[in-house]
Amino acid sequence: MTTLPPETEPVPVPPPSAHQRVVAAFERIGVLDRPDIWITLRAQEEVLVDAKAVDERVHAGEHLPLAGTVLAVKDLVDVAGTPTTAGCPGFSRAPVTSATVVSRLTAAGAVVLGKTNLDQFASGLAGTRSPYGAVASALDPEKVAGGSSSGSAVAVALGIADLALGTDTGGSGRVPAALNAVIGLKPTLGLVPKTGVFPASPSFDCVSLFARSLALGQRALAVMTGPDGLDPAVREWPADVRLSAGQRPRVAIPDEAGLAALGDAARRAFHVAVTALEASGAIIEAIDVSTLLDAGKLLYGSALVAERYASAGEFLAGGPEGADATVSGIVAAAGTHLAHELADAQTRVAELRAEARKILAGQDALLLPTVTDHPAITEALAHPVGVSSRLGTYSMFVNVLDFAAVTVPVAPGDQRPFGVTIATRAFEDQIGIDLAAVLTGEQEREPYPADGVDVVVFGAHLRGQPLHGSLDGARFTGPVRTAERYRMVLLETEPPQPGVLPGGTGLDGERWRLSPGAFGRFAAGLPEPLVLGRVELEDGSTPLAVLADSAAAGENLDRYESWRGYLRFVSTAGLRSPG
Amino acid sequence: MTTLPPETEPVPVPPPSAHQRVVAAFERIGVLDRPDIWITLRAQEEVLVDAKAVDERVHAGEHLPLAGTVLAVKDLVDVAGTPTTAGCPGFSRAPVTSATVVSRLTAAGAVVLGKTNLDQFASGLAGTRSPYGAVASALDPEKVAGGSSSGSAVAVALGIADLALGTDTGGSGRVPAALNAVIGLKPTLGLVPKTGVFPASPSFDCVSLFARSLALGQRALAVMTGPDGLDPAVREWPADVRLSAGQRPRVAIPDEAGLAALGDAARRAFHVAVTALEASGAIIEAIDVSTLLDAGKLLYGSALVAERYASAGEFLAGGPEGADATVSGIVAAAGTHLAHELADAQTRVAELRAEARKILAGQDALLLPTVTDHPAITEALAHPVGVSSRLGTYSMFVNVLDFAAVTVPVAPGDQRPFGVTIATRAFEDQIGIDLAAVLTGEQEREPYPADGVDVVVFGAHLRGQPLHGSLDGARFTGPVRTAERYRMVLLETEPPQPGVLPGGTGLDGERWRLSPGAFGRFAAGLPEPLVLGRVELEDGSTPLAVLADSAAAGENLDRYESWRGYLRFVSTAGLRSPG
Repeated sequence: MTTLPPETEPVPVPPPSAHQRVVAAFERIGVLDRPDIWITLRAQEEVLVDAKAVDERVHAGEHLPLAGTVLAVKDLVDVAGTPTTAGCPGFSRAPVTSATVVSRLTAAGAVVLGKTNLDQFASGLAGTRSPYGAVASALDPEKVAGGSSSGSAVAVALGIADLALGTDTGGSGRVPAALNAVIGLKPTLGLVPKTGVFPASPSFDCVSLFARSLALGQRALAVMTGPDGLDPAVREWPADVRLSAGQRPRVAIPDEAGLAALGDAARRAFHVAVTALEASGAIIEAIDVSTLLDAGKLLYGSALVAERYASAGEFLAGGPEGADATVSGIVAAAGTHLAHELADAQTRVAELRAEARKILAGQDALLLPTVTDHPAITEALAHPVGVSSRLGTYSMFVNVLDFAAVTVPVAPGDQRPFGVTIATRAFEDQIGIDLAAVLTGEQEREPYPADGVDVVVFGAHLRGQPLHGSLDGARFTGPVRTAERYRMVLLETEPPQPGVLPGGTGLDGERWRLSPGAFGRFAAGLPEPLVLGRVELEDGSTPLAVLADSAAAGENLDRYESWRGYLRFVSTAGLRSPG
Repeated sequence: MTTLPPETEPVPVPPPSAHQRVVAAFERIGVLDRPDIWITLRAQEEVLVDAKAVDERVHAGEHLPLAGTVLAVKDLVDVAGTPTTAGCPGFSRAPVTSATVVSRLTAAGAVVLGKTNLDQFASGLAGTRSPYGAVASALDPEKVAGGSSSGSAVAVALGIADLALGTDTGGSGRVPAALNAVIGLKPTLGLVPKTGVFPASPSFDCVSLFARSLALGQRALAVMTGPDGLDPAVREWPADVRLSAGQRPRVAIPDEAGLAALGDAARRAFHVAVTALEASGAIIEAIDVSTLLDAGKLLYGSALVAERYASAGEFLAGGPEGADATVSGIVAAAGTHLAHELADAQTRVAELRAEARKILAGQDALLLPTVTDHPAITEALAHPVGVSSRLGTYSMFVNVLDFAAVTVPVAPGDQRPFGVTIATRAFEDQIGIDLAAVLTGEQEREPYPADGVDVVVFGAHLRGQPLHGSLDGARFTGPVRTAERYRMVLLETEPPQPGVLPGGTGLDGERWRLSPGAFGRFAAGLPEPLVLGRVELEDGSTPLAVLADSAAAGENLDRYESWRGYLRFVSTAGLRSPG
């Protein structure tokens, strides 16, 4: 750290340009010599043309949330101008348009570096089923990178890319995140359009993301999410989604029997995560996860696997160049199931989703090990089915049961980091991200989804106050102070609460964001004489706020500056203490 | 009509007791001699025991929304104490608990009369595939009743039952409604639990209802809807459902090519319905429905039919007593499809649902013929597959595409009545019911679902006023007048609008109901200086209302009694006219 001359303001360092970041990425690619990561690396001069375009947009004043971020793309996802192989040379095709997610990320300023290696047709969790080579972990060259989004995870882990697209059906976005110690975000099924993404098992597939930091990942996800008018499987956020866990989040974990499959390293990391969440105030409860683990077995162990035949079966039956024998065998077998067996399996999935909702009732999230252990490449090559299946113990059920998930690395002391996963109910992605932020030490402020309704509260709705419960599932977005033209009065209500009226010196409150549906219920339950109106804040914004009907004005509380100030006064003075 | 002595108040006639209604139903059963309707008719003395219990609850002061209504139940739906045959004697089983819907209806005061005849395993649309006899139409004994809920529709049509439960996969709740001229309600898939209902094609099955009147049917549906904690396929109303069509509903109809399959009688009735809706203010638009009609063919013409094998295939393969040859043949063939064909068909359904949303974009509903014609029983027996398939032309796609539907009879002049169907998007059931009420001449006031948020408006949000658009999808629930302690002031806004403040003589407004999500968006968009607070109405209730911040008070408008009164004044006086 350099010492600044006194009285001199530090000169802000401009973020590196897209050009600089691309040049750095190619330098790192050269130094590391890891050809196993890539199937198609774009020519540096081509990528620099894209980078220049981004830099020009930034110079022209455009706000690009991902300006200059370097993006790697799993080679199951179309990027116009580069072939899509799905990990099978004989499949190679030249897409004329990019996948929706790729177009959205590049429109937001990301620059595509190339297409990454994967388990062929996204079939495998070790990262070794590829004619382009088994991918080695960023943490240990003897060990697997995890799959199927192997190359994407390693590109981020080695600092080449800031962001990398994966896909996730049974764990393909989480297992490689864990085995390379990067952040992996697996959104709720259907939030991100899959237009231009080759399917594996469409009912359970989603686009996933690896990211240098949780904050960057969330910013990218916000760009990726939402209907594109093309993918019929897109689901919009429901209007009554919860935007936050309770004040003390309730986090379920597997009981001892549920952790029996864990090796030592994974167990140590898992306990570090439990301890960290508990220390942050979370209420941890061990639950029986056997129903959940069994649900994961349906993905390959029932007629559900027929979706894989529907996706790639006819193609692989033709014996294309470079077909992986294990993948071809799995997919061919998937073609023999009868339709009514699939109907039965789907009925079972619906029942299991209902059972899972009951198992997680009252919980905000489920903390899970991501994988059991970190297998050697030699073992995965020798036992391709067994190793993938073991690696998927804690990941395979997540999409079957319609959960969202975030995988984050946890380092037990001086040990090698290992990823743990936080799963949440569908559409509660933000709750998982918030809990993940506790483990990464990042602060996540911007709620996702962002189409909530902000309301400023001053009195009995404040955190810890009697009416705060009516903000259940709302997200705290910061303390606020009003403009200097409001005063606070005491309302003779039960519990006592303040009303905010025009005329005064300003006061402190809290801003909360609710989903539109939750806000509707909040407003419908607002007790007289409170009203909802706009309040002007110090910064000139005018959000909705809980105010009062002027006819209800009681004692002027202006001198206390805030309701908490007044409460401190009455409790010190031994006066009547509110409810 | 008797003439009352002058000055005497009419003595209110008490509604007939449950006892009286059950006795009347059995009398009618005796007179009509229609054994084809029933598979199990309960003993009169047993039913009277239930009726007595209802009468006692009513006498004890309990409010029972369906007190004493007589209910017939399709013999695919469990009623404890009576066998469930699914139309196949060899299947007969004795359920120990009633289906959720039956329990809910009887808890609300309905009394079960018996179990009705159906096409075996709900497989057929003519009502002739039953070892218990082909069911004849209530309108013409030579013609089919329509199926598969044949006996239920006829029981209501002949005035035996007030309500009858059916099920509907490809039209089983609508076709018999049309061919017996009764009201048939087919709710959105998943709104009504199917616990205790034997499945046909579970992805597309729902419980349906025949009713003596639309109002009674809606009251019963309100009781039937909602999670029971047992059926995993239950879907809750989304928080942002639309509760009403626009002020001039937009109703799509098939273009001429789409109506080509219609016989003369069906065509005449359809045109009567179009004319009636248009006369009521609806905007009618003819659209190409070929994609929709094709979607219906998937139900039996693709591997989707495998769900029928999953439901009844193994049972029918055993050659049970009374198995219908046509049904057994269809189900056996359904067992031969491969799982990946089903996966492909499901992908196609998802695509078609998205296409259908685009086709109906901007429309509130789709008016359809229910059936092409009214076949003779002899024809249906001679050509069992062809006739069912023809009858399903306009009904088979409705559940495939996730629509709700209401079928109502329409009588062209002195001709025999014929049912038309109003289909709406999933969860917009109420919009279809409202449009159906135009055709039946009934007034439907109570919104369904009922968990909306009421808001009273006075000024620019009134019907026809500049800000009314922000109430899009809201339901008008009546004019209101405030208590005599409010006054109206002119706010100097653009457009000009009134603020409502305490102190005055009361004023007129309108009450609207919004879904919680829509209310959240409405509140978030409320312009300053308006606020949302409670207003006391003449009747003492205190709903939310759009009021004003007292600091914004301008000219007192009290003397105009309502904003419309003020607007009339300014327009007459040639003063400035608002926005």
